Amino acid sequence: MSNIPKDAIQCLDKGFVRLVDSMGGDEAIVQAARVSYGKGTTKLSQDRGLIRYLMRHRHTTPFEMVEFKFHCKMPIFVARQWVRHRTANINEYSLRYSEARDEFYYPDPEHIQFQSALNKQGRMGDVSDELKQKVREYFREISDRSFEIYSELNDAGVARELARAILPVNLYTEWYWKNDLHNLLHFVGLRSDSHAQYEIRVFSDAMAESVKAVAPFAWEAYQDYVISGLRFSRIEQSLLEQNLPVRVIDDILEDIIYQITATLHHNKPRKENELYPLYQKQGGNDAEADFMLKWDSGEIETSNVRELREFKEKLLTIKK
Amino acid sequence: MSNIPKDAIQCLDKGFVRLVDSMGGDEAIVQAARVSYGKGTTKLSQDRGLIRYLMRHRHTTPFEMVEFKFHCKMPIFVARQWVRHRTANINEYSLRYSEARDEFYYPDPEHIQFQSALNKQGRMGDVSDELKQKVREYFREISDRSFEIYSELNDAGVARELARAILPVNLYTEWYWKNDLHNLLHFVGLRSDSHAQYEIRVFSDAMAESVKAVAPFAWEAYQDYVISGLRFSRIEQSLLEQNLPVRVIDDILEDIIYQITATLHHNKPRKENELYPLYQKQGGNDAEADFMLKWDSGEIETSNVRELREFKEKLLTIKK
Amino acid sequence: MSNIPKDAIQCLDKGFVRLVDSMGGDEAIVQAARVSYGKGTTKLSQDRGLIRYLMRHRHTTPFEMVEFKFHCKMPIFVARQWVRHRTANINEYSLRYSEARDEFYYPDPEHIQFQSALNKQGRMGDVSDELKQKVREYFREISDRSFEIYSELNDAGVARELARAILPVNLYTEWYWKNDLHNLLHFVGLRSDSHAQYEIRVFSDAMAESVKAVAPFAWEAYQDYVISGLRFSRIEQSLLEQNLPVRVIDDILEDIIYQITATLHHNKPRKENELYPLYQKQGGNDAEADFMLKWDSGEIETSNVRELREFKEKLLTIKK
Amino acid sequence: MSNIPKDAIQCLDKGFVRLVDSMGGDEAIVQAARVSYGKGTTKLSQDRGLIRYLMRHRHTTPFEMVEFKFHCKMPIFVARQWVRHRTANINEYSLRYSEARDEFYYPDPEHIQFQSALNKQGRMGDVSDELKQKVREYFREISDRSFEIYSELNDAGVARELARAILPVNLYTEWYWKNDLHNLLHFVGLRSDSHAQYEIRVFSDAMAESVKAVAPFAWEAYQDYVISGLRFSRIEQSLLEQNLPVRVIDDILEDIIYQITATLHHNKPRKENELYPLYQKQGGNDAEADFMLKWDSGEIETSNVRELREFKEKLLTIKK
Repeated sequence: MSNIPKDAIQCLDKGFVRLVDSMGGDEAIVQAARVSYGKGTTKLSQDRGLIRYLMRHRHTTPFEMVEFKFHCKMPIFVARQWVRHRTANINEYSLRYSEARDEFYYPDPEHIQFQSALNKQGRMGDVSDELKQKVREYFREISDRSFEIYSELNDAGVARELARAILPVNLYTEWYWKNDLHNLLHFVGLRSDSHAQYEIRVFSDAMAESVKAVAPFAWEAYQDYVISGLRFSRIEQSLLEQNLPVRVIDDILEDIIYQITATLHHNKPRKENELYPLYQKQGGNDAEADFMLKWDSGEIETSNVRELREFKEKLLTIKK
Repeated sequence: MSNIPKDAIQCLDKGFVRLVDSMGGDEAIVQAARVSYGKGTTKLSQDRGLIRYLMRHRHTTPFEMVEFKFHCKMPIFVARQWVRHRTANINEYSLRYSEARDEFYYPDPEHIQFQSALNKQGRMGDVSDELKQKVREYFREISDRSFEIYSELNDAGVARELARAILPVNLYTEWYWKNDLHNLLHFVGLRSDSHAQYEIRVFSDAMAESVKAVAPFAWEAYQDYVISGLRFSRIEQSLLEQNLPVRVIDDILEDIIYQITATLHHNKPRKENELYPLYQKQGGNDAEADFMLKWDSGEIETSNVRELREFKEKLLTIKK
Repeated sequence: MSNIPKDAIQCLDKGFVRLVDSMGGDEAIVQAARVSYGKGTTKLSQDRGLIRYLMRHRHTTPFEMVEFKFHCKMPIFVARQWVRHRTANINEYSLRYSEARDEFYYPDPEHIQFQSALNKQGRMGDVSDELKQKVREYFREISDRSFEIYSELNDAGVARELARAILPVNLYTEWYWKNDLHNLLHFVGLRSDSHAQYEIRVFSDAMAESVKAVAPFAWEAYQDYVISGLRFSRIEQSLLEQNLPVRVIDDILEDIIYQITATLHHNKPRKENELYPLYQKQGGNDAEADFMLKWDSGEIETSNVRELREFKEKLLTIKK
Repeated sequence: MSNIPKDAIQCLDKGFVRLVDSMGGDEAIVQAARVSYGKGTTKLSQDRGLIRYLMRHRHTTPFEMVEFKFHCKMPIFVARQWVRHRTANINEYSLRYSEARDEFYYPDPEHIQFQSALNKQGRMGDVSDELKQKVREYFREISDRSFEIYSELNDAGVARELARAILPVNLYTEWYWKNDLHNLLHFVGLRSDSHAQYEIRVFSDAMAESVKAVAPFAWEAYQDYVISGLRFSRIEQSLLEQNLPVRVIDDILEDIIYQITATLHHNKPRKENELYPLYQKQGGNDAEADFMLKWDSGEIETSNVRELREFKEKLLTIKK
């Protein structure tokens, strides 16, 4: 396992992201687009404008012509989320071949938070210093004890591939990871999002720094058109509301009722068994099992109850 | 998390593989091949012969026309190897959304073995009952204690996505996994191999049962031409030897010297620091760092020292 | 080459799409989602609502659990666009193995149109019956003559793989094509779009019929949330306009100026060399080479000039 | 469309391959392998030996860490084969956006050959100068006439996407193509093979030059272990024969009988309708439809009839 190299960005307490190599940048995107549109290799004056245009109109293949290779070190539970992005090439440190090293992730106090009541996959709120202390002690206890046992089994000659099975997922691992810009942006879009787990967001943000440096126009355009979600036709579509099919109005109403429930619960927390009745009282029609699944899937945002209710009324009017 | 369904094959102590659905079989392979060769959809008499022919001559695309979907439950360290097969579609149980259940893998006594002295990623030998007992106690200790802490943190309201970071990789997880026959055979070829880790081999063998049932001719042909297929050891084939370039003879000599070293070590185990001198004594030329890397990478087979030496002499003769 | 099977949907004059097999449907999507959210395999009451929810919130992996296999016959120039969707498995009729058959695509009179003046990759307007007649005669001339030569070369024993090089891309080819629902919906989204070439749209629409039949809820949700582009947060975002970064306002202004130019040109067609001056007169700042590239790339929509100008003024106000 | 750039390798009469960019080389392979085996980033002495070792033992992922980007121009029928390699990223010249240029492939006289009698996808033999002349005239006739019509339709304002449908597949197209070393080697392995069509082999050979220059050790190892690698013919290896299952012996016998038939036919060509009886006379058991399909699929090699018959006898002996 590697220590943090000088040219790397430190991530969490012992991890890092390091750009090892890259191929192409903004100019490679423009170059590829010109071939598709039959403009040969003539230089255009405004690469930035063209890149923004390509991004805005979802012409994605030119962005695949830029390639990045990173050297990264992260806890196993982060690696487990990361590896789901299947277009990347990976060479990972193997615990069958090599011994584990005593390197575990301990969360900073500020990132020890409560389970979000609104978002099954989120955190919220201020935890007492006492509980923070306890969490850190528990992380240390399990890490120390599991590594002690692992070492003892190793010394006794037990197969490494078996002994490692007792190591927790806060153990650090390490890999080379290679991907193209289009897919890297998609990764960053999902993993630097506020709904992503803090611990992978740190790594995604670090990779974003490399994207910014290597392809600044592409980065900027991605922010404006994908992350901030602005698409041209969407800007002036108040008319659309008049043409909404009834089933979509029903879906929006459904979401609003969830949001009202979540906001009420946020303002004055309820017990678990009071949530479904609260939801029903707002007009919710889902069966309890469905309610629980959606409530748990973690995408409900809170807002202003009054505004939500007004919007609900407006929709009910449109629907008639 | 699911208990073991009735129609599933149990794997390890608490895991399983269950074929949920499949599309096509031997007949779908033949059907696709006929289109490529312009034979329309006329029925041929001998599907089996054609499938064997396609496999023998590496015409692989028709095998992609058959699809399998499995429901599986396995320890995290097994899932980590499994997920590297990137063509599959996966929906996995999420520990951000849902609570972990108290289900951990404890190895059977018979599969608790020593680290292989010859294969950095293997096991060998008989461990004493005492040590086996100790390993199982340690697995139980870490599993119990980590789950106890996890539960306490959960009850205290700590975010699930954080609390789960102390759970060890012998915890069970669960997923739906879908892949085509060509890639499934490749998976089984690698993971049912004797060099694969026992714990994933069990799952691979279970999926192989489904392949056998759904596409028996394809399975048989794969066994005959890929698994039993001719590999490196076939190098001695007489005509070929006359045409071997010197650099390939050198590579074979290199492998033979590793095999002689490994066989001598197997017959009479040496200490770690005696291995490199032993290797040099057999005529090995690698630097020590290179020697260690290759020795550790886990592919060295043992054989009969006398035969290996004779083969070495023969090669040296050819080389001159 | 196959004639049109009974259970196929005819496409163009001699092509077809036929659903050969499928695996799973709406229920398979729900089943996979339940595993991810830890809800086991319990039956929920409202599959439709859950599928709409998954689509609305971009949880795409459960849609990968459904698989389709089609048998299709289409002109080569259509196959060339089609094959760019890289996740599919394909077995295509080979002109190296087999002889070409005398089957060429001749466009219906109603689909013979002029090059769009606004869209480099589109058609528009009513062509005279005389020109339509001429186009069809030319298609027939080249098809007949090339096939005559091909046959003569074949009879003379010339290699098929070479002789076929003179056949035009309106020749029909044939394949088996297999893909999952998520990627199939993406295909249909792009290829059934009004900007797609008519000749591939026909095939995409035919495959859409199978999607509708096999996974009706998924199809409906895809229409509502991806095709009609309705996302929840977008419904009430007049506030957003107040927060637009200046560079995005500039991009929208750029697009509006192109739209004004295109609309003016549509209402009263200009000569090619008058377009750039017209564009400049509306306030366009792109250099001529950039203007031509964007004008040619085929995404400019026309609208009402007065409304566009009002919107432009509004944006200029916001920008200050 | 681009003319042949100075730094490109010309391919066929008007095409080319040009390496635009690359990322990494032999050292990047070694670097990635070291991370997997936990050797950090320490320099080893013998990169070449390690690369040969990785190739020999099929550790393929480190080879994915090297990336190549090419600019290429080739006839459409070549592009159609090329695009089947699905891991590559592609940006191709579009005939919907841009006008076709008058650039068609005309085969050199020396590559105008007869259809192979033995290989449904091959060429063989010397064609008379007269026939060669005729082939070239026909290529020119169709190319000229189709381009003439295309131009006339273009001038009349007919939609480009429609007019292009009459252009033959010997028209040149152009693209940027990006792939990693592992998959590029696989491409070269298949397309530089003697069974590949001459016209794509030329491009594959040109790309191979870049591989040689960028990653010479990897290239050499690939040649030695995959291309020259031991394939079906190695079956005679003595020890193996004793362990062959009967069904594999039957398959080998089947192949030998095809080879004997092909060799007899090669030595003294038969009419098409005499082939199946000839095959049956040698002991072949396939039904005629199966015989034709396999005969046509193009993999039958010729050899020495006497040796083949001796081998057949030996196998029949083993089988008893």
